[in-house]
Amino acid sequence: MENDLRKYFPFINRYSKISEILSDKNLASLGDAYVNFVYSLALSKVAGKPVGRKIKSDLLSLALKRAGIRPLLPQRTDRHRQADAAEALMVFGWLSGAISIKETLDTLARNGDMADNFCTVLKIILERSKIS
Amino acid sequence: MENDLRKYFPFINRYSKISEILSDKNLASLGDAYVNFVYSLALSKVAGKPVGRKIKSDLLSLALKRAGIRPLLPQRTDRHRQADAAEALMVFGWLSGAISIKETLDTLARNGDMADNFCTVLKIILERSKIS
Repeated sequence: MENDLRKYFPFINRYSKISEILSDKNLASLGDAYVNFVYSLALSKVAGKPVGRKIKSDLLSLALKRAGIRPLLPQRTDRHRQADAAEALMVFGWLSGAISIKETLDTLARNGDMADNFCTVLKIILERSKIS
Repeated sequence: MENDLRKYFPFINRYSKISEILSDKNLASLGDAYVNFVYSLALSKVAGKPVGRKIKSDLLSLALKRAGIRPLLPQRTDRHRQADAAEALMVFGWLSGAISIKETLDTLARNGDMADNFCTVLKIILERSKIS
């Protein structure tokens, strides 16, 4: 499945600039479902029991800031829109093949600060995607 | 990843009866995140653009009824709890290895009625899982 994602979702090939990805509301909407899923999976792995949780905007906006992505957004972007941008980038990273669900899950389930773990995922996606 | 799910989430081995799965609130909670994700993926595939959508309880309760699972729940179970049961069974099916995200996505993205497509997924999980 993960090798075929670009075939399943050819629309992902239309994105070429990071600013396009970060401001795409449709991508943020799919990203919201994706991020809540991988976040819940990571919490379930750590807890040793099933957990479902909606991620808070503050956590994602903090991760975005720590990853150095904040300056790429318009100055007055509020925290909710910053979180949308992080969600859009995360699902872009998965759909484009830059990172797998497994690697995302392993990173999010590490000991330590969850915002740092999300920051690591965002940085991996930026590094591996040929977008600027 | 999908081959290692039982290692990542060993708690899945604790479930042995269908009635346990259908009434597990934690599993339903993780299942909610899982189902919204695969549902959004299927809608994105069909639409040819990213779509994020929360599934309505009515759709899942209808799928549960059509799959013949409704009689396994207490008689007065409302639609919301019926949807919870469907979500719990769907994520159980994925975590236990009965069905992959790819097969789920392919089934949900078929032409035709979405409740029937969910019904098909639920029946596949029931058939392949050795639960009763």
